Amino acid sequence: MTFGLGNRCSILLSYGTRDWTDIYHSGPVWKVPSLDRPMFQSAALPHVMTRDDFAAVEARLREQLLDAQFEVAEKKNAAVLVTINGSDGAGKGEIVNRLYDWLDDHLVGTLSYGRPTDEERARPGAWRYWRDMPAKGRIGLVLGSWHHRALRNRALGRLDRAAYDDVLENMIRVEEMLRNEGVHLLKIWLHMDDADARRRLKKLREANGSLRRPAVIEWDEFDSARARGRLADAAMEMVERTSTGAAPWAVVPAADPHYRDAAVGDLLLQTLIRAAAAAPPAARTLAMAEPMRDLPKPSLASALDLSLTADRATYGAELAALQRRLTEATTARSFRRKGLVIVFEGNDAAGKGGAIRRVREALDPRRFRVHGVAAPTDEERARPYLWRFWRNIPRRGDVGIFDRSWYGRVLVERVEGYAAPDEWMRAYQEINDFERELHENGYMVVKLWLAISPQEQLARFQDREAKPFKRYKLTPDDWRNREKWALYETAMTEMIDRTSSRHAPWTLVEANDKKFARLKTLRTIVERLESQ
Amino acid sequence: MTFGLGNRCSILLSYGTRDWTDIYHSGPVWKVPSLDRPMFQSAALPHVMTRDDFAAVEARLREQLLDAQFEVAEKKNAAVLVTINGSDGAGKGEIVNRLYDWLDDHLVGTLSYGRPTDEERARPGAWRYWRDMPAKGRIGLVLGSWHHRALRNRALGRLDRAAYDDVLENMIRVEEMLRNEGVHLLKIWLHMDDADARRRLKKLREANGSLRRPAVIEWDEFDSARARGRLADAAMEMVERTSTGAAPWAVVPAADPHYRDAAVGDLLLQTLIRAAAAAPPAARTLAMAEPMRDLPKPSLASALDLSLTADRATYGAELAALQRRLTEATTARSFRRKGLVIVFEGNDAAGKGGAIRRVREALDPRRFRVHGVAAPTDEERARPYLWRFWRNIPRRGDVGIFDRSWYGRVLVERVEGYAAPDEWMRAYQEINDFERELHENGYMVVKLWLAISPQEQLARFQDREAKPFKRYKLTPDDWRNREKWALYETAMTEMIDRTSSRHAPWTLVEANDKKFARLKTLRTIVERLESQ
Repeated sequence: MTFGLGNRCSILLSYGTRDWTDIYHSGPVWKVPSLDRPMFQSAALPHVMTRDDFAAVEARLREQLLDAQFEVAEKKNAAVLVTINGSDGAGKGEIVNRLYDWLDDHLVGTLSYGRPTDEERARPGAWRYWRDMPAKGRIGLVLGSWHHRALRNRALGRLDRAAYDDVLENMIRVEEMLRNEGVHLLKIWLHMDDADARRRLKKLREANGSLRRPAVIEWDEFDSARARGRLADAAMEMVERTSTGAAPWAVVPAADPHYRDAAVGDLLLQTLIRAAAAAPPAARTLAMAEPMRDLPKPSLASALDLSLTADRATYGAELAALQRRLTEATTARSFRRKGLVIVFEGNDAAGKGGAIRRVREALDPRRFRVHGVAAPTDEERARPYLWRFWRNIPRRGDVGIFDRSWYGRVLVERVEGYAAPDEWMRAYQEINDFERELHENGYMVVKLWLAISPQEQLARFQDREAKPFKRYKLTPDDWRNREKWALYETAMTEMIDRTSSRHAPWTLVEANDKKFARLKTLRTIVERLESQ
Repeated sequence: MTFGLGNRCSILLSYGTRDWTDIYHSGPVWKVPSLDRPMFQSAALPHVMTRDDFAAVEARLREQLLDAQFEVAEKKNAAVLVTINGSDGAGKGEIVNRLYDWLDDHLVGTLSYGRPTDEERARPGAWRYWRDMPAKGRIGLVLGSWHHRALRNRALGRLDRAAYDDVLENMIRVEEMLRNEGVHLLKIWLHMDDADARRRLKKLREANGSLRRPAVIEWDEFDSARARGRLADAAMEMVERTSTGAAPWAVVPAADPHYRDAAVGDLLLQTLIRAAAAAPPAARTLAMAEPMRDLPKPSLASALDLSLTADRATYGAELAALQRRLTEATTARSFRRKGLVIVFEGNDAAGKGGAIRRVREALDPRRFRVHGVAAPTDEERARPYLWRFWRNIPRRGDVGIFDRSWYGRVLVERVEGYAAPDEWMRAYQEINDFERELHENGYMVVKLWLAISPQEQLARFQDREAKPFKRYKLTPDDWRNREKWALYETAMTEMIDRTSSRHAPWTLVEANDKKFARLKTLRTIVERLESQ
């Protein structure tokens, strides 16, 4: 049987589709139910690659992969372990075969683990993985990794909450240790919509007699929707919790085999380059390969329907009603024991200021502060990057509004190169930890991404240039950032994928129409508050 | 009120003292009760320094500390936080004053936290520490750190088992993040025997009117033995769990103020040197300062009474009886679901081989293996250092005997420089994790250190040279290692301090008399097995 992230993730993603009003009022999304795992939404977007495009990518990949592989083999300073997990039917076996085609197969080995043998059962669970550890210079392709084992045990109810926590914490430490010891992990999750995967698996099964390459079936006994749901929950939690700077997960859309193989090849290439560049242990400097240019990676923003507009006739009344609800929610007695942190991010000129104003108007002026985030001061640069946000965390009962935020670390600092790759890679986990701490202290963290199209941005820039009182809003930086639109979209998509945690999910706001954006912003905040 | 590690640790330490037989039969030690925290036993040894010695050390320290401090201040690439915790009466306040005397006080600040203020209470608990974060180039001396807060909440029952686990895991991550962001932590635990600390505190209190410097009293409400016991347990667990490579704890014996201040000064000097040498984040290379030469650090082995001998008249009978019990314990039905791992470490020529033989004789020859550990092979060097031990973990029901072990990482590899300082520093945690995993999988890990005096070693070497059939046992390495006796003793003491975990405590075996060593070895194993 199959399962995917899709059935849970696509809900959040579909905010921006035409049937917005239906989804929007579905409630549970805002309640952030404990089983909802909104990370890696972008994998649910359509990812396709034509046969011709694939042929071109493949020709380049083969050459580069071999080069990188031989460099690792010669230097012998690192081993690479590729763990391949995901839905049955998503192509786990096909990926392994493809990688054998592309790589020099003398230096690759498959490590495949199913039901433990007697030999294995007689020893600690980790023993079988240790026994097969590839030597430095070699690549291991792992099917049925320790991730699989933990997932299965959790989904079958053999691990309770606390035991699963322990397993995940232990996983983080062991993987960090492996990285310190020169074993580079590439942790792949092949994502496929649940229904698609089941269809594909059925087809595979029917053709089974003629199959030359047997499919990798790992989740056979998870044949009820409930069982698959438990599995999906456990999987999402694992991906969220064990994505560390040293060993992040990569969720690969697997519906289109060409795209899937190209994406895995690209990820492996980057891992090999990093492994080859790794200095002897202790000093770790990362030379990250540029993401592949010809691999079409749809951004989450591109999935939004930016043509959405607010109804002019009812806008005023709707706005007033939402503001009233916000006032009520933030002046209620129960709010005094809580705190509210609202993060505004988005494209330049997306209308953050206007949206913030509509929020601010509804708040007690003594009980909120808006924090604009500019380039860090000397004072701030001299401390960990989270410091300047920590000191502005509001008192309980107050509201802190951040006009740009700690996410600068994985947006502008990443794109402009102010942060090194391993700094922004580990920042995802650090930010998730930070927001979890706020959550556990009774704070609600609402994160909004205001998205506009490049055309709309251009129009707004020109408008700002034309109007003297708006001109101060436009800086040379804005024009420069515009040229890096695609890089920012990539950074934004990865950011949303990796930080849309259970406790603090992102909401994407279609902002080509300012009035629509303001209503959605207010509604998001109000409904989160009211759902508590 | 006061508490220390002493009341729990000294039990294990006193194995080697004259009243050995009494202690030895006290039982609970071998049961490894869940509250026993045997780490950092060496702090309970007498650490003293004369006034004259201190004057000499101080003169040198002041100069070096100032040099290092100014280098950190100029480079501005790192901040240093010294968190000072420990028993009331152990001299927390005195340490702060001493450090002010020694350092340039413009670049040092005290960060002192007591009961939270209204401002602090209104925000997440971590906020007050973030607010005061020193800028790079500066040193912060922290009284009442986050460690203190977690300890208090645990000891007062405000954090249950699971919540305390969470707090400790979170602590590890935050401290790692701080280190990555250039904040170097020196986490000090001032250790004082409980009774001594209370005496000292009483004296301080009586003289309170005339005190120029008020004492730092933090644990006032812990006035019952039971409350102090809970506190000691929570403290030991924190020290064990949160001693990471990035931010290890240092347990400083505080009974003698001269020794205490010199030790803290030396630790701070090393931290400053490391901070100054730290490359910009991402690349981390550690230039560890040599431990201070004139600071007398007693080794744990030096506390042993090596004159202990076995009674020749009863030796044979005792040996036979112990072997019989070992045979029984390892052939019992219940043993088949468990595994036994025995680690032998010790000085060269300490008699590990002979002791192993006496153990081996009592085991089913089909169900044990002895693993001699020599220099790693190419195969082994190409993989994480734990690999060669992982693959030799016995099946359940079997016994794995390691003649030298994974502890080579923090002994020979440290002393000979095969492992870099940050490699062997993080190895303590990795080894504790490894042994905890074995423990959780039903394995018992028994670790024995066979200790002989340098004189006895010389005699045995000479004996080996003289007897042709023993000559193969003596290599030029043995003579070389002998010259590094003191370095090995330091490494051994730190090893025992940092890896004598609850699940896998060390036992020190006085081995100048081979027969005595063999009996104690067998008895240790048998009693651990029988106590389960």
